[in-house]
Amino acid sequence: MKALVYHGPGQKSWESIPDPKLQEPTDVIVSVDTTTICGTDLHILKGDVPAVTDGRVLGHEAVGTVAETGSAVGSLSAGDRVLVPAITSCGRCAYCKRAMPSHCQATGGIGWIFGHLIDGVQAELARVPFAETSLHKVPDGVTDAEVLFLADILPTGFEVGVRNGGVKPGDVVAVVGAGPVGLAAIMTARLAGASQIIAVDVSDSRLEFAKQFGADTTVRAGDDAAAQIIAQTSDGLGVDVAIEAVGLPVTFDTAVALVRPGGTVANIGVHGAPVTLHIEELWIKNITITTGLVDGTTIPTLLQLVASHRIDATKFGTHEFKLGEILAAYDVFAAAGEHNALKVVIRR
Amino acid sequence: MKALVYHGPGQKSWESIPDPKLQEPTDVIVSVDTTTICGTDLHILKGDVPAVTDGRVLGHEAVGTVAETGSAVGSLSAGDRVLVPAITSCGRCAYCKRAMPSHCQATGGIGWIFGHLIDGVQAELARVPFAETSLHKVPDGVTDAEVLFLADILPTGFEVGVRNGGVKPGDVVAVVGAGPVGLAAIMTARLAGASQIIAVDVSDSRLEFAKQFGADTTVRAGDDAAAQIIAQTSDGLGVDVAIEAVGLPVTFDTAVALVRPGGTVANIGVHGAPVTLHIEELWIKNITITTGLVDGTTIPTLLQLVASHRIDATKFGTHEFKLGEILAAYDVFAAAGEHNALKVVIRR
Amino acid sequence: MKALVYHGPGQKSWESIPDPKLQEPTDVIVSVDTTTICGTDLHILKGDVPAVTDGRVLGHEAVGTVAETGSAVGSLSAGDRVLVPAITSCGRCAYCKRAMPSHCQATGGIGWIFGHLIDGVQAELARVPFAETSLHKVPDGVTDAEVLFLADILPTGFEVGVRNGGVKPGDVVAVVGAGPVGLAAIMTARLAGASQIIAVDVSDSRLEFAKQFGADTTVRAGDDAAAQIIAQTSDGLGVDVAIEAVGLPVTFDTAVALVRPGGTVANIGVHGAPVTLHIEELWIKNITITTGLVDGTTIPTLLQLVASHRIDATKFGTHEFKLGEILAAYDVFAAAGEHNALKVVIRR
Amino acid sequence: MKALVYHGPGQKSWESIPDPKLQEPTDVIVSVDTTTICGTDLHILKGDVPAVTDGRVLGHEAVGTVAETGSAVGSLSAGDRVLVPAITSCGRCAYCKRAMPSHCQATGGIGWIFGHLIDGVQAELARVPFAETSLHKVPDGVTDAEVLFLADILPTGFEVGVRNGGVKPGDVVAVVGAGPVGLAAIMTARLAGASQIIAVDVSDSRLEFAKQFGADTTVRAGDDAAAQIIAQTSDGLGVDVAIEAVGLPVTFDTAVALVRPGGTVANIGVHGAPVTLHIEELWIKNITITTGLVDGTTIPTLLQLVASHRIDATKFGTHEFKLGEILAAYDVFAAAGEHNALKVVIRR
Repeated sequence: MKALVYHGPGQKSWESIPDPKLQEPTDVIVSVDTTTICGTDLHILKGDVPAVTDGRVLGHEAVGTVAETGSAVGSLSAGDRVLVPAITSCGRCAYCKRAMPSHCQATGGIGWIFGHLIDGVQAELARVPFAETSLHKVPDGVTDAEVLFLADILPTGFEVGVRNGGVKPGDVVAVVGAGPVGLAAIMTARLAGASQIIAVDVSDSRLEFAKQFGADTTVRAGDDAAAQIIAQTSDGLGVDVAIEAVGLPVTFDTAVALVRPGGTVANIGVHGAPVTLHIEELWIKNITITTGLVDGTTIPTLLQLVASHRIDATKFGTHEFKLGEILAAYDVFAAAGEHNALKVVIRR
Repeated sequence: MKALVYHGPGQKSWESIPDPKLQEPTDVIVSVDTTTICGTDLHILKGDVPAVTDGRVLGHEAVGTVAETGSAVGSLSAGDRVLVPAITSCGRCAYCKRAMPSHCQATGGIGWIFGHLIDGVQAELARVPFAETSLHKVPDGVTDAEVLFLADILPTGFEVGVRNGGVKPGDVVAVVGAGPVGLAAIMTARLAGASQIIAVDVSDSRLEFAKQFGADTTVRAGDDAAAQIIAQTSDGLGVDVAIEAVGLPVTFDTAVALVRPGGTVANIGVHGAPVTLHIEELWIKNITITTGLVDGTTIPTLLQLVASHRIDATKFGTHEFKLGEILAAYDVFAAAGEHNALKVVIRR
Repeated sequence: MKALVYHGPGQKSWESIPDPKLQEPTDVIVSVDTTTICGTDLHILKGDVPAVTDGRVLGHEAVGTVAETGSAVGSLSAGDRVLVPAITSCGRCAYCKRAMPSHCQATGGIGWIFGHLIDGVQAELARVPFAETSLHKVPDGVTDAEVLFLADILPTGFEVGVRNGGVKPGDVVAVVGAGPVGLAAIMTARLAGASQIIAVDVSDSRLEFAKQFGADTTVRAGDDAAAQIIAQTSDGLGVDVAIEAVGLPVTFDTAVALVRPGGTVANIGVHGAPVTLHIEELWIKNITITTGLVDGTTIPTLLQLVASHRIDATKFGTHEFKLGEILAAYDVFAAAGEHNALKVVIRR
Repeated sequence: MKALVYHGPGQKSWESIPDPKLQEPTDVIVSVDTTTICGTDLHILKGDVPAVTDGRVLGHEAVGTVAETGSAVGSLSAGDRVLVPAITSCGRCAYCKRAMPSHCQATGGIGWIFGHLIDGVQAELARVPFAETSLHKVPDGVTDAEVLFLADILPTGFEVGVRNGGVKPGDVVAVVGAGPVGLAAIMTARLAGASQIIAVDVSDSRLEFAKQFGADTTVRAGDDAAAQIIAQTSDGLGVDVAIEAVGLPVTFDTAVALVRPGGTVANIGVHGAPVTLHIEELWIKNITITTGLVDGTTIPTLLQLVASHRIDATKFGTHEFKLGEILAAYDVFAAAGEHNALKVVIRR
């Protein structure tokens, strides 16, 4: 089969490699119909994720069709249309049983293994371990493009941003960073009944996207952004929930500065450096700070919302490619700003 | 002043009575600008609420202007525009401190006292006890009609239906009864992110209202209503949350029949007779049944949602009257079906 | 092997039958070391559970040793000491993923299959389906008698009584019925920080057990039991949580009568007849009623509490038998009152 | 009357000043029967709290007797025995209504005003504003020494440590710092059903106290404390909840290092300097960090637990003084280590 293979920092190729085979009775082989590229894939290509080694097939988000099933697989059959999520779940370790497959102990304490610890889904075929506890059947009448972004970005915004942030009807929510994951947080905060959503970003075009995804007001990042936003809240005390969706010290500081006494800062951003936490001011503020990798446990809920047309996740897909053009898709996604791109949809 | 006075079963009149006076340092006198009539007022007029005695001014929902303040009132001043909610809160009893003024111990274990245990607000003036812990300032730029129904019906649907029912994003919700309080539950279930809302009623015109308030599908009440609704759920097991908004044994039975294992039945209906609970079938179903009088603790949230235009509560007001025409307003409201009426807006 | 086989109402025998064999790759065969008898087994023997048919091996609670593993079983090996819980979990259906294996869809919507829909564990050997998602390894240094009752009765009292009841530190809790499952609720309500636990029963000897398991005060069931208990609460309004642990209309009525406005009635009892619910009084009381079959999801927590000696579950085992004497064990358990018995411990 | 008056950094005296008078209709005057000294009082005396100015009476924890009541006070009378908590609550601002009087907006956004923004309770008499929404009647049969520490330290440990930390039955809890507030966290974590409590401190005598208050194991603070503690957890992944009860960067770091993926760090410590948060490691760990000033909303629960003898708060009072000897009491408390003191009980 053909696959997108990592060959060390800066090196990738679309090449022929042997087809994946069933290894465990609980595996299935999925024929990939549609996939996409994640910001994490770009990090891997920079060499930032040393666990990814030469020869690894990249990619952890796909919609596909079951091609072959292991001997222990009873509830999936060849021909089933499935969503392959970023996080696999063994279903039996203490973390999976507590609905936290993000930290699945069967795979070394991390549920993200596709395109990381095992071969991924930017390929014609992919082996999926723990298939019955990991895959989601796609409801009838729902297209690939409608569910593709439920593999990672939408549950990340919803679980790590909105749910961890405790967004409830009436809340005022600020989202710092209007890239794809920030937009996912905006879309699902709207769904959860936020009364006001304020997006912050350095880029005007991203702030334009923020409005399309449900932000009520937008603020250009800068020295006085926090003050501007706090001034917009009805009592001038700050927002109920601030969602950090970038991963830099400056954006983390902004999120913390925005939140009212009793509020929550939900960090989604992937950080590469420590931050200074002003606990000498925060200890008395009764705030909560949360962090997290997505679990994917809300994917069934999101599938239901997609099927009933409460969420339109196709909005994330700004550019389309054929699977054979995946190198071009990487070029566009890596220069998303230039192309006004959010996510790419790559079809077989 | 003029007021609508109850004179025993079937007897009411719009008459002149002495102006109310401050009795406690924590009282205020409110000049009523806008009021409405509740189904409970009709029950009182039938003689169903013996605690209401001859001479009582009726009414427990109003928007008004503070006219006079008691000596202990520091945060309200004459001229402040306020929402007078159905439930008052002493702020200091164990129930009020636990955010359950529905059972305020300072007023005999029930927070509903207007037009019940003390004179109500279907009058030109009203005395409001525990004013600072009970009244809500109306935000600037919001009209009387936008907030009037936050005095009772909207928080009832939201707290007793949606919140007690635990409605969360993605849930499938059935609302049994599409009268005003059922419509309030529909409107706020939508807000809370329900993926599908199914309304059940005997009346086609009410089912039409249900759609306008956010129901996705409607079902005529009848022998096979429950079976029809269950068949609409994706796995055929029933709805996540069934909200009873009528108060009859038959509608309670329907609500219980609809709910899936693990689901919740939230009772809003005011019942006059016991029901048979089929606990020989339910004990194993892991269901939750809730009941409740509104607390009004979500009114600040609802005010925020009104101010940010997430909720349009003016929809409830189908007919308008002047305060002096309140007897005509009662006639229309008492024959709501004939007039295709929901709630009346009665203005000074 | 030898097993206790059901042969229709009133008929059971300890007889030789073929050894169970692995049927699915996810099965294991467990050699039973210790088992017990449940009240449900007595119901089955009366013919009350028609799904149990002639030839079925009874029993759904055991501690044993893994003898053989299916080809898909990776995390269990022959020789592992395991707790076999009453409820199995496929780990992959929507209910299991939501931590509600009580309603596992892979086994017909009910997670209780041992000694019910498949052969049970009152035998020398037992086949355990969905082994990795169902069995619990027994921590080192913990005896069979310490964990045996974590198979059913202790998680039932904890999950269906204490957790569904929402018992939190400081709560006043009444437990109606001081049989084994009521005692499990008492023991775990104590653990959860209840300030006062009141036990109600018709039997003085059971009330004596109630004290040993942590009840502060005991009340003989009878006409004025509810009034007596309510009078014991500090404000005379009733208890925070009432746990029904019998399954009769009269005990359900008592539980409902005990609870304060805002309180919770948690039903554990297995009911055979409907009850009259006085919703004409309850609609205004803001109460919650819960029902449920155990899920067993708290077993890991309970194992931790046993291992750290916070819970002494050996107290339930009042009588001991050898496996070959299981018919005598049934005689004692069926006449528990006469023998002052709670549960029997039956060892290989 | 006589009172302990602050006269600038390092300066205090026990002197005669005019009796406090009722200022608002909602005030009461309390005659102080028993009081104590808080670590915060020592900070004030160092000049660390600039809002405290020359002439201020110190102290924010007392048990007393109502001497006089304002005209709007209906539920308290002269002679009532009351607990004066550290935090007052106006009962009417948005924060008080949300059960967060820690941030009461009526008193400038902070509910701690005694001995800070108004005169305190280390005096023969004290004026208590917002009396009915702030004071707690002491149940009959409970001594001053049993409830005195419910004014601040015990609810602080319970709310900011145990409740914010989400401690639930079975949890493994580490408490970093075994001073009075850490001991309060230990005592209430035990109550909440923790399976194992591990105390960390630099002082052996404090670790001895930790055992007396309910710690299972103790660890001397030092370079490998975190590693030692993590090694004690059953799966070697860390504790469920780490409570920081010191307020230094090094102890905050220890708390963060201890917590497992999915766990919570509850900060109680009052910090004077920022900390470095290693979010480059934490972003993926799905942890929660909470901060907070006590609200006191759990005081009714704690009073219930004291009255039912589930909590023995007298253990905190290691030394007793007469009110006239308060300067000696300060000397002992300021050198607590030397005297093996926890808290002082100062009686009229």
